[in-house]
Amino acid sequence: MTEKLQGSSFIGFARGQGNGGDFQAMNAASGEALAPAYSAVTGDEFERAMALAKEAFPKYSVLPAQKRAEFLRKTAENIDAAVDDFSVRGPLETALPEGRMRGETGRTSGQLRLFASLIEEGSWVNARIEHALPDREPIPKPDVRSMLVPLGPVAVFCASNFPLAFSVSGGDTASALASGCPVVVKAHHSHLGMAELVGDCVVRAAQETGMPEGVFSLLYGGRDIGTGLVAHPVTQAVGFTGSRGGGTALMKVAAERAQPIPVYAEMSSINPVVFLPGALAEKGAALAEGFFGSLTLGAGQFCTNPGLIFLPEEGADEFLSQLAEQVSGGPGVTMLNSGIYDAYLDRVKELGASQGVALLAAAPVVDHQATPAVFTVSVEDFVAQPDLQDECFGPATLIVQGSVDEITAALGDLEGQLTGSIFGTDAELAEASDLVGTLQSRVGRVMFNNFPTGVEVCHSMVHGGPYPSTSDGRSTSVGTLSIERFCRYAAWQSFPESALPEELKDENPRGISRLVDGKYSH
Amino acid sequence: MTEKLQGSSFIGFARGQGNGGDFQAMNAASGEALAPAYSAVTGDEFERAMALAKEAFPKYSVLPAQKRAEFLRKTAENIDAAVDDFSVRGPLETALPEGRMRGETGRTSGQLRLFASLIEEGSWVNARIEHALPDREPIPKPDVRSMLVPLGPVAVFCASNFPLAFSVSGGDTASALASGCPVVVKAHHSHLGMAELVGDCVVRAAQETGMPEGVFSLLYGGRDIGTGLVAHPVTQAVGFTGSRGGGTALMKVAAERAQPIPVYAEMSSINPVVFLPGALAEKGAALAEGFFGSLTLGAGQFCTNPGLIFLPEEGADEFLSQLAEQVSGGPGVTMLNSGIYDAYLDRVKELGASQGVALLAAAPVVDHQATPAVFTVSVEDFVAQPDLQDECFGPATLIVQGSVDEITAALGDLEGQLTGSIFGTDAELAEASDLVGTLQSRVGRVMFNNFPTGVEVCHSMVHGGPYPSTSDGRSTSVGTLSIERFCRYAAWQSFPESALPEELKDENPRGISRLVDGKYSH
Repeated sequence: MTEKLQGSSFIGFARGQGNGGDFQAMNAASGEALAPAYSAVTGDEFERAMALAKEAFPKYSVLPAQKRAEFLRKTAENIDAAVDDFSVRGPLETALPEGRMRGETGRTSGQLRLFASLIEEGSWVNARIEHALPDREPIPKPDVRSMLVPLGPVAVFCASNFPLAFSVSGGDTASALASGCPVVVKAHHSHLGMAELVGDCVVRAAQETGMPEGVFSLLYGGRDIGTGLVAHPVTQAVGFTGSRGGGTALMKVAAERAQPIPVYAEMSSINPVVFLPGALAEKGAALAEGFFGSLTLGAGQFCTNPGLIFLPEEGADEFLSQLAEQVSGGPGVTMLNSGIYDAYLDRVKELGASQGVALLAAAPVVDHQATPAVFTVSVEDFVAQPDLQDECFGPATLIVQGSVDEITAALGDLEGQLTGSIFGTDAELAEASDLVGTLQSRVGRVMFNNFPTGVEVCHSMVHGGPYPSTSDGRSTSVGTLSIERFCRYAAWQSFPESALPEELKDENPRGISRLVDGKYSH
Repeated sequence: MTEKLQGSSFIGFARGQGNGGDFQAMNAASGEALAPAYSAVTGDEFERAMALAKEAFPKYSVLPAQKRAEFLRKTAENIDAAVDDFSVRGPLETALPEGRMRGETGRTSGQLRLFASLIEEGSWVNARIEHALPDREPIPKPDVRSMLVPLGPVAVFCASNFPLAFSVSGGDTASALASGCPVVVKAHHSHLGMAELVGDCVVRAAQETGMPEGVFSLLYGGRDIGTGLVAHPVTQAVGFTGSRGGGTALMKVAAERAQPIPVYAEMSSINPVVFLPGALAEKGAALAEGFFGSLTLGAGQFCTNPGLIFLPEEGADEFLSQLAEQVSGGPGVTMLNSGIYDAYLDRVKELGASQGVALLAAAPVVDHQATPAVFTVSVEDFVAQPDLQDECFGPATLIVQGSVDEITAALGDLEGQLTGSIFGTDAELAEASDLVGTLQSRVGRVMFNNFPTGVEVCHSMVHGGPYPSTSDGRSTSVGTLSIERFCRYAAWQSFPESALPEELKDENPRGISRLVDGKYSH
């Protein structure tokens, strides 16, 4: 499979030459370099990719949705066909198991097909029509029609923890391409080979379905390329999944441009889980087991990993002892890369050394492998130390014990989070409306008797939350609503039918759901 | 009417004491100070207003939509009842005629009622439901439901040019209050008395309809109060209409907060108008007359004022001579305030002194009154001087002549604009798809055979455009879509029916349009 890899960027349909072998992917388990060597994109190649994206936009954005959908579906097909390659290269680069690569392949192609269906159906553009009233007094009403239109070329950054579903052709790329925006991707240094394999799937699909060349490029390079991509005048929006430091750095670059642009950065979240007494009394041990599964899934390397537990002061013994037992026996797991592993060790050490924080349980240390750990702290000490809310990316969590009122107050002071979960009986939920309301105000998605890991890709998903869980808490990066991130509203006034986009013609040739003269119609 | 004015801020339902008589409104025509003197809000009063807004949010945001609608309707009623006061005070403070005050009163109350209807109907929340599939393989699908929820307290800045429709209870306030966000308004120094009159209408309505006290405050103060309002941790979004300098300064403050927040600033736009040969041949003189009306409406003090004309090289003589004749006889009009008048004089002088710019016609100068002026420039000189795109706030415009290809190229290099207009025959429009596409890509609203002034308040309006016409080109500040600016998506996963918001319950008690398991339903 290595022979398929050339180690160079995709500049539209051509391959970059780069500067020649600048860096290599590492075997996540052994630390050995993986062939081939990868070349960072040159300045000229970078400018060529951006110029191609700029040229492609006016052509690609006005293609019939069916043509864009064909491109997405062909990409999905190519990705499904490459699953064996992913299953070999992915585990080497990321230490994620083969089964995860196969699962993520299906999720990635499924996501592309979902966006293809979305734009084929077409109602997502939120078309609105108000007909003219030429005789209205005191002034006539003009004919005004509006819908969402694409913003322009989008820069997408691959995520370390999802080599497929949040990388080269993951959710950001799929939603941007679906909306009509060309995409320029920056590969993640952790999985260079996976990026190239997927990039090849996208480029072949673009060629096979007759897309304009600049619709997609994939760049290899360091931070300068990432910063350059956000700063480049051609770029009109940014999709990023990664650390808070990385995300806020890109936000700063975007805000300081002559033309500021939106940055959709999914950054960090500790996803609080609140256990109410009734749930603990009913099945404390089972909840501990479920929680442990969520905590250690993928070695805790999910943005929805539960890094914070709120427990009542009484009645939590069974939960605590069962969780301690599971954690103590938890296996060591190789993390995505050595940087993430080192950061996990540091953060676990910091947590353990914080005021009032005690270790409840930890698995025996295994060299170069992350092992789970659970800490406890009083609600007073938790509230007094805001940096206890800093994300610990890996299988460690912090338990805060207090009364429902204390927990509600602590939730109100939490930083913005992607998710918040409550475990309880239906009766408890009904009584806990203050707690639920407070939690809901701090998160993008609130869950009842569900652990946070696992994000359904569907029309109703919100995978986004108040800052700093995401840079722009108005949006979601998973599900069909994510397409809105790369669009703006545009209106046509007093245009003849023949010059209007299909979505806004009276006869509704696309058969979409619209708001016409104040009434929803299909 | 002056006896109704106290010269102090509204801090929730109470009146601020302030520091005592810091500044006064000016008679726009005479330059004389108008009673009463106004006090800037004190630091304590400011903090009290913000604390009240914070407290009000969790109460106000969960009120049934019908209750919020009652508040909006009562505000509209109070505003309609105060029209005589507005008609006396408004012309003094702004030099806008009494008829304009009456018209703007109707627009302002109409807007409040439109938002009341919108939230009573309820479908604006974009509710989405996906039911659980517990038997799905390989993993069960959870029940996920989502909708728009309000962001939190919103800071609104009054605009100089609309003392009613874009000020204390204008579009920003109406949409924010409708969404469930409390509002803290900063009055504009140009119309202090109008602000107080409207503030009184809002506060009485809030009291009469039992709203939580902090739902609305109105602050008097200088730039420090404006900056403080955007920087304050309680503020979650900003609505602003004004200069590019003012808007970008607020954007900077918002981006540098510990928690960056969205700023919706409508800043500057020169609203290009393209005339195609067929239209000029058919009715060149009538178009010149229509254009002159749009240019001089409200002394050119509209954000949609047409500050740029593109004309073909041939066949424009009748248009040019008719426009020159109208402009030469154009009356002088007192502007909103002396700062705006001085800026207009400066900008007209700058324009006239630019490379290759020639005066086509100007009305005789009238002291302290803005008079119309029209300049011409070649397309080469226009393209070579990007600062010719700087807004001239007032009744002056710049004519650029060139071929359709040259005009298309020049449009492609334009800064983002609120509007763009094309005048032509249907046949010309059909042939000019490149020009139309290019113009559409640079503006929020493209118009055919319509002059840009006049913005319909309706479901389909887009009054926003690519930067720098607005800070956030994804949004509109006029029409019902403007409510989305103050909202974020939020999801509920696996919640029992009884604990869900009304909008997300299976039985659809509000009878709204929703997306349920992928199908639109009503």
